Amino acid sequence: MTFDIGRKADFSETRVESKSVYDGKILNLRVDRVRLTDGRLVSREVVEHRPAVVILAENDDESVALVRQYRYAAGETLFELPAGLAEPSEDIAESAVRELREEVGLRPSRVEKVAEFYTSPGFTDEIISMFYATGLSPDRLPLDDDELLVAGFASRGEIEDLLRAGSIKDCKTLFGLHWWLNKLNARS
Amino acid sequence: MTFDIGRKADFSETRVESKSVYDGKILNLRVDRVRLTDGRLVSREVVEHRPAVVILAENDDESVALVRQYRYAAGETLFELPAGLAEPSEDIAESAVRELREEVGLRPSRVEKVAEFYTSPGFTDEIISMFYATGLSPDRLPLDDDELLVAGFASRGEIEDLLRAGSIKDCKTLFGLHWWLNKLNARS
Repeated sequence: MTFDIGRKADFSETRVESKSVYDGKILNLRVDRVRLTDGRLVSREVVEHRPAVVILAENDDESVALVRQYRYAAGETLFELPAGLAEPSEDIAESAVRELREEVGLRPSRVEKVAEFYTSPGFTDEIISMFYATGLSPDRLPLDDDELLVAGFASRGEIEDLLRAGSIKDCKTLFGLHWWLNKLNARS
Repeated sequence: MTFDIGRKADFSETRVESKSVYDGKILNLRVDRVRLTDGRLVSREVVEHRPAVVILAENDDESVALVRQYRYAAGETLFELPAGLAEPSEDIAESAVRELREEVGLRPSRVEKVAEFYTSPGFTDEIISMFYATGLSPDRLPLDDDELLVAGFASRGEIEDLLRAGSIKDCKTLFGLHWWLNKLNARS
């Protein structure tokens, strides 16, 4: 790389003061005063959010489970990979399997971790663990009370069409599907 | 698809009441009461965030511009594609070019839109437009006052190493880099 990856970019910010603004159901908001490495004080708005999971489940015919769900914050119905909040009582991979059972009605025989990432690190600590699941068989759990969605499977060609048309508008789903397309390329 | 993509999953939620909790610098928070299609009332916490841009800039040697930046909300230094808030006064592609000039010091001769997506539609309306830029030449703008970062370029092999090592922990960057790797595959 033309910049030294080993070079420590130490721009870490130190909390000087923290004010809780809101404690809610799925998120909290706080506003902190922080000190930059050059000594200046600035404020940072931070949305605290529980960790979440997303699961890319591939069927034996090389199709992928998608759900279609209305997202109130976005104001539209989105295609997404099955996802949800991690439960503190569960191992994180168990949370991903539970979401797949709830949203799609299937249990995988193999689950592997793909990545762990922040959704929007400029303002939230929300972190998502992504899993890849295969060996699917029916094993349904009931959906959460306020979740209404339809689930189905899309083939590689259908997914490429949806991507080309701009019909996938959720970042974790865009990442997961492109990761999967790369995996299929490497496979063939 | 095994579910009908044309089938309208009309689970849209109607706002009944809206309470502003916080009006801030980069975000607002409101809590709404909404009616589900089955008639029930639930509450939804919504973080309103300004639209943002992200830009994948490819150099003539097939390397990609990355920045390394401390993210206070995440509590760590992340590798990211250059990104920032869109300015209401700018065309959205101009915002992406401005961010590239500020963070990397380069101006592209060609810019194309890749995608538009929500970062975390379960709780925020934040939407990011991603651009692909080539034909880079030096043309630096000063950084924002509270932004401290280092920028550089990573080759395809270096990016594959970073991905394999789990060193990329930002969702838009994971999406962008996998989109680009797919593009390179299609090119060869």
